[in-house]
Amino acid sequence: MNWERLGKEFQLIGQIAQKAGSLKPADKRVQIVQAIGDDTAILQLNSPAQLLWTADMLIEGIHFRLDLCDAYRLGWKALAVNLSDIAAMGGTPVGALLSVAMPEERTGDWWDQFMEGFLDCAKTYQTPLLGGDTNRSGQITLDVSVLGLAPSLGATQRNQAQPGDFLFVTGALGGSRAGLQRLLAHGFEQANAQDPEAVETHLKPLPRLEEGHIAAQSGVSAMMDISDGLAGDLPKLCAASGLGAVVKTDQIPIHPAVDRWLDAEQERARFALEGGEDYELLIAVSPEQADSFSSRLKAVPITKIGYFTEEPEIWLEEPDSRRLPLQGGWDHFGG
Amino acid sequence: MNWERLGKEFQLIGQIAQKAGSLKPADKRVQIVQAIGDDTAILQLNSPAQLLWTADMLIEGIHFRLDLCDAYRLGWKALAVNLSDIAAMGGTPVGALLSVAMPEERTGDWWDQFMEGFLDCAKTYQTPLLGGDTNRSGQITLDVSVLGLAPSLGATQRNQAQPGDFLFVTGALGGSRAGLQRLLAHGFEQANAQDPEAVETHLKPLPRLEEGHIAAQSGVSAMMDISDGLAGDLPKLCAASGLGAVVKTDQIPIHPAVDRWLDAEQERARFALEGGEDYELLIAVSPEQADSFSSRLKAVPITKIGYFTEEPEIWLEEPDSRRLPLQGGWDHFGG
Repeated sequence: MNWERLGKEFQLIGQIAQKAGSLKPADKRVQIVQAIGDDTAILQLNSPAQLLWTADMLIEGIHFRLDLCDAYRLGWKALAVNLSDIAAMGGTPVGALLSVAMPEERTGDWWDQFMEGFLDCAKTYQTPLLGGDTNRSGQITLDVSVLGLAPSLGATQRNQAQPGDFLFVTGALGGSRAGLQRLLAHGFEQANAQDPEAVETHLKPLPRLEEGHIAAQSGVSAMMDISDGLAGDLPKLCAASGLGAVVKTDQIPIHPAVDRWLDAEQERARFALEGGEDYELLIAVSPEQADSFSSRLKAVPITKIGYFTEEPEIWLEEPDSRRLPLQGGWDHFGG
Repeated sequence: MNWERLGKEFQLIGQIAQKAGSLKPADKRVQIVQAIGDDTAILQLNSPAQLLWTADMLIEGIHFRLDLCDAYRLGWKALAVNLSDIAAMGGTPVGALLSVAMPEERTGDWWDQFMEGFLDCAKTYQTPLLGGDTNRSGQITLDVSVLGLAPSLGATQRNQAQPGDFLFVTGALGGSRAGLQRLLAHGFEQANAQDPEAVETHLKPLPRLEEGHIAAQSGVSAMMDISDGLAGDLPKLCAASGLGAVVKTDQIPIHPAVDRWLDAEQERARFALEGGEDYELLIAVSPEQADSFSSRLKAVPITKIGYFTEEPEIWLEEPDSRRLPLQGGWDHFGG
């Protein structure tokens, strides 16, 4: 297709199409018929299947600041946060649409680097870019939509946790928050020099696709990703399942960047569980399945941090058995 | 699910879920397993099928102005423009995701009316709302993503027009532009009093889903919707198919609102073909199929306005056979 003929918007789209190349989804049940170049992407699905579909918006000034985030990692993150939602269902990504609004002055180098980050994430997790929308705007707004296929056992939802199920979490919590606070306090250059791991954890999350897939194939009860902090997301899982939970504060796996950021030792657990954008997985597993499940997860550590209860309250339990109700988490329209 | 427990953002989502109800897609090949209430929607597809997938962004100040567009019709339009892309493939919609960023003061009456418009459109075209994302922002940005299923013959793309094919257009052109210009000149109240049909045509487009489906089932060569004006979109169809075209200016069906807006008679055709947001369909049909195809379209008028050529140029042909090259159309990043 001859894009050049059709003006600057189509030059932009033509360049994206060229860079996106001919990446294919990992799942062989689906083939791409039409990708970038039409208003509508076409996918051929060769067998019955469960489709997973999600979208996440990132807005300049709300979700990111251009002085604190380079274009490459913003591109990566815009896709990665959506892949995390597919991971939370145990699914495999099939493709992505990218809608972007931006000032015209961003269409040069900044955009090239943004797309490099987006497409590196796409290649890493085999998620072909299939289309989207490009627009002018005073501020950058990104909306990414991702389609995936559920594993053969079906998607793992958040509403099937059972009383007595153990509560597991992948990786470690609070690293992203430590990175963000360091960025806010010192700016990108200095924060990145002080603790590049913290900055990387915040700006370039790694969706737990493999771990989510293994969990779903192991038949865990319920799963979701942690985007609004354990304190924000565990209540959602509990509400969906009609349960409560007990979380043992001394069992929460705390990211090492938290220790490098915080002075006061006693606040570590609260800092970690109230931190947003960890993109780890929260998993409910029956006690019978817990050992065989956790032994299958090798690449990323997994930690048992509590259990689910029939009573609807959610408690933080200190090592001395003292209990405090869980509060907190991020509310986009909250006070 | 008990949304109230989870703060204001979840109250908002809970209200949406309640209003969205349990609408089902028309195509029985697909069932909804999980809609609003999870980060990810789940669809069960019961047979092999071709999936259609599109997204369109609407931005305050770029695509709409709140003083010129009521919330109800903005909600309708946000979904309708995406359904138009599904119509252009001959598909049937399966569901929608709505990502929205808005100032907090919009979360009251304005939002209720917006959702009423969105969900009325959803009901009219059997497109259940399955999820999305809600965010705070200084200006309103809407991104809607729609999934559809292609008809049994497969999706009609824009790259298969053949030399000699006739060029048809549904409905009439320029009405949306006439409505927009009237709104810009006189404001909503006065424009709506002067010519409510023009205002309605601009603010509440009707996606040609039935017409697109009939066209695809009739085996037309190529199809696309007109969102950037005939002058903007015909070049895309021609470029995709590697063809040129001749458009007879006196055959272009001109919306009656154009006559009520324009003084100078001779500019009518150019005004209509350079107008954006008509959301009519542009269809390439072989001469052999033209009669049987056009006789199947009953609810909406359809007009033959020209033909495709092997030579790549696109010409406007006047009644005296004088030819002018086609230029124009809307470029989001153009000068």
